[in-house]
Amino acid sequence: MSAQAQQHAKRLDPDSPLIGELRALLGERLSTSAGVRANHGKDESFHKPFSPDAVAFAHTTEEVSAIVSLCAKYKAPIIAYGTGTSLEGHVAALYGGICLDVSEMRDVVEVNQEDLDCTVQAGVTRMRLNEYLRDTGLFFPVDPGADASIGGMAATRASGTNAVRYGTMRESVLSLQVVLADGRVIRTARRSRKSAAGYDLTRLMVGSEGTLGVITEVTVRLHGIPEAIAAAVCAFPSVEAAVDSVITTIQLGVPVARIELLDAMSMAGINKFSKTDYAVSPTLFFEFHGTTAGVAEQTEIVQGIAAELGGSDFKWATLTEDRNRLWQARHDLYYAMLALRPGSKGMVTDVCVPISRLAECIAETEHDNRSASFPAPIAGHVGDGNFHIAYLIDPDDDDEIAEASALHDRLIARALAMDGTCTGEHGIGYGKMDFLGAELGEGVSVMRAIKQALDPDNIMNPGKIVRL
Amino acid sequence: MSAQAQQHAKRLDPDSPLIGELRALLGERLSTSAGVRANHGKDESFHKPFSPDAVAFAHTTEEVSAIVSLCAKYKAPIIAYGTGTSLEGHVAALYGGICLDVSEMRDVVEVNQEDLDCTVQAGVTRMRLNEYLRDTGLFFPVDPGADASIGGMAATRASGTNAVRYGTMRESVLSLQVVLADGRVIRTARRSRKSAAGYDLTRLMVGSEGTLGVITEVTVRLHGIPEAIAAAVCAFPSVEAAVDSVITTIQLGVPVARIELLDAMSMAGINKFSKTDYAVSPTLFFEFHGTTAGVAEQTEIVQGIAAELGGSDFKWATLTEDRNRLWQARHDLYYAMLALRPGSKGMVTDVCVPISRLAECIAETEHDNRSASFPAPIAGHVGDGNFHIAYLIDPDDDDEIAEASALHDRLIARALAMDGTCTGEHGIGYGKMDFLGAELGEGVSVMRAIKQALDPDNIMNPGKIVRL
Repeated sequence: MSAQAQQHAKRLDPDSPLIGELRALLGERLSTSAGVRANHGKDESFHKPFSPDAVAFAHTTEEVSAIVSLCAKYKAPIIAYGTGTSLEGHVAALYGGICLDVSEMRDVVEVNQEDLDCTVQAGVTRMRLNEYLRDTGLFFPVDPGADASIGGMAATRASGTNAVRYGTMRESVLSLQVVLADGRVIRTARRSRKSAAGYDLTRLMVGSEGTLGVITEVTVRLHGIPEAIAAAVCAFPSVEAAVDSVITTIQLGVPVARIELLDAMSMAGINKFSKTDYAVSPTLFFEFHGTTAGVAEQTEIVQGIAAELGGSDFKWATLTEDRNRLWQARHDLYYAMLALRPGSKGMVTDVCVPISRLAECIAETEHDNRSASFPAPIAGHVGDGNFHIAYLIDPDDDDEIAEASALHDRLIARALAMDGTCTGEHGIGYGKMDFLGAELGEGVSVMRAIKQALDPDNIMNPGKIVRL
Repeated sequence: MSAQAQQHAKRLDPDSPLIGELRALLGERLSTSAGVRANHGKDESFHKPFSPDAVAFAHTTEEVSAIVSLCAKYKAPIIAYGTGTSLEGHVAALYGGICLDVSEMRDVVEVNQEDLDCTVQAGVTRMRLNEYLRDTGLFFPVDPGADASIGGMAATRASGTNAVRYGTMRESVLSLQVVLADGRVIRTARRSRKSAAGYDLTRLMVGSEGTLGVITEVTVRLHGIPEAIAAAVCAFPSVEAAVDSVITTIQLGVPVARIELLDAMSMAGINKFSKTDYAVSPTLFFEFHGTTAGVAEQTEIVQGIAAELGGSDFKWATLTEDRNRLWQARHDLYYAMLALRPGSKGMVTDVCVPISRLAECIAETEHDNRSASFPAPIAGHVGDGNFHIAYLIDPDDDDEIAEASALHDRLIARALAMDGTCTGEHGIGYGKMDFLGAELGEGVSVMRAIKQALDPDNIMNPGKIVRL
């Protein structure tokens, strides 16, 4: 039975006992309106959306537990939802069921300044957290671009521009509160910086995409706002030269905070969208954090590396507003890419390879993309070996969809052949399940065994990560 | 049935079919000699050793797979063994069975200099790896003290003196090759720096203590040997003053490579054992890594912090041999502690708390220990909030054992009350199983479900981490 067929087969009746019991629990905070449901079944990806049968807006862990318990009683699917900014169809209600929206769980539970950590409810977004922290001298660094919820970022193992220095959600989460498939609530770890106490439940839940439990609270590491921050842009004669600069920078152990590659096509999009006049050639965006002397030292080393590889002079942005403008251009990249082909939609993907293979992987990919009948700009967090492509297709043109899919298949095969991964940061959702087996083989059977052990009725975000 | 009773009940006969099949596979590399068996059933802990029925020395992953498959066929326990330097009875064959010794799996499989990683067979020790890497300019930083095998370090989520800068095995392992309970071989991840591809099997296996599979190959992150290294020792008027220096250092984001606390009693032991003349007061051992300018900056900041808190002048060790002597004293600490009470044995433990609670936790612990009828020196990796106690007891005196156990119980309760963990780095083994429930409650049931899913016959290091 196809996902669509199952979806229709399993739809909950609006008068079903589950809906009735949820309504008794939540009142107005249970919605079955078509608009709310449609909104909650789609993310920012190209993947087909599937609406849930109802959307439950929870305010507390206890409510989440009660909602999950009811879904367990009726064996109804439950899909956690933060901001809907995922990119592999993570929130699609493939089999209907209840969308559990945690976006109203917006409390910062506690900030432990001395310990450089804080605990937030799952719906707190990264920008809200950083606003909250403004007067503490601390910040939460993980920045996937979108103003995603911290719970969703944990669930998808998000990373982004400054993971090269501060790590991904894998390294940033100290502990989680999770509601299990039967409604029980666990905390995955204590708040100490390290622990050797049994299986690493925190890391198991980080990246599990709501398939093993619903994350309701997240304790994350914070960092001191650096004394000095500097940002710069540098153009290169080729992608290889740019990537070689990155490799050398990483190998020398320069603790660069961000190091982003945009190819010539992306830069053309940025100039068009942001009214800038950057050189239309492969470009690195840098950010350096540290003491004043430390930043000076880092930038001197990196400028030396770039110059040797034919990079242009650095364009500096040291004032906060200049820096924000520079990074705004990077953050607006997706819209800038779309500007390259008005009316198009981006089929966006990401892969990650060992950094020694990065130049080769991008070069082969550019070569392959050259044949495409649509633009396919490339950009990425190259300090980690992670890059993105947006295939800018006409969403109504099946030929273009097929062509993009074929390019995409070859991209993944190329990354896997280089000992890379089919996704550095976007996750599997239902969009990349076919690639997971190619990447990990029998490892997927271990994932399946874990899924079946922790969610025997397959109600937690079914149809994502592993097929049962 | 007690563990001892079960052990006797389940002993394999030397003429059993399993032993016969293993001998056919391994020839001389299967040992049933009493000495070899006894050697393999004990670690460096105070916990009662239990000998396996036979010891199998594997050379390849394929052999490990064949051995595990045979054990699965006969439902015989299998206990992986690296160097026997674990500290919570991890290698004790509580129910008999086969000890799988991987210490002869000593190949460095590959070094990827450009990617700052390498893959080793599980039996390669950390010192052997660092010798191997000597000419590459790279090093493997995780240093638990003992020259442990990398496989064992991964299995126990080891850390040690420079985890504060470079992370523990949790952060250091990129990928593992693991033989599952039915003999299947998986690789937990590709070699890219990050991935969002499904459940984090790598982190699940790191710290699983051989209860979910046998680790046969480990891919770890390497780091560039820093341009400059400086080490120093600084005495403080109180543990609080020393710990406050640490907290401030960490909060300021100084990337100190090691920051170790030894209490006055430990320093007395060191002077006695190593013929040094350090002040007999709470002391911090520091190591700074970086560029020449970076190290100068770090040390200036830290000296300023220490001076404000009443620390003595720094005693510097910048020459390699001086530095090695200084750290040798730290590494010999256990023996130095024993020198405080000749003939004693150390009941060694570790806890880890949020750093804001560290001074309080150590102060209360020192106060509690003051009543003890034996010395109980304290030392630790205080940058992580992790510290150790060695209760120096007469191993033949049941009263002292009971007294130490009571102190230990209160130590763990104190750490848990401060939102800490019952073990920062030693692991659970069979020595700390009772504390795991107190720490994680229902979380333990999740561990149990995972264990049962991946090892339904409970043959992988049974009786460790979780009770079934």
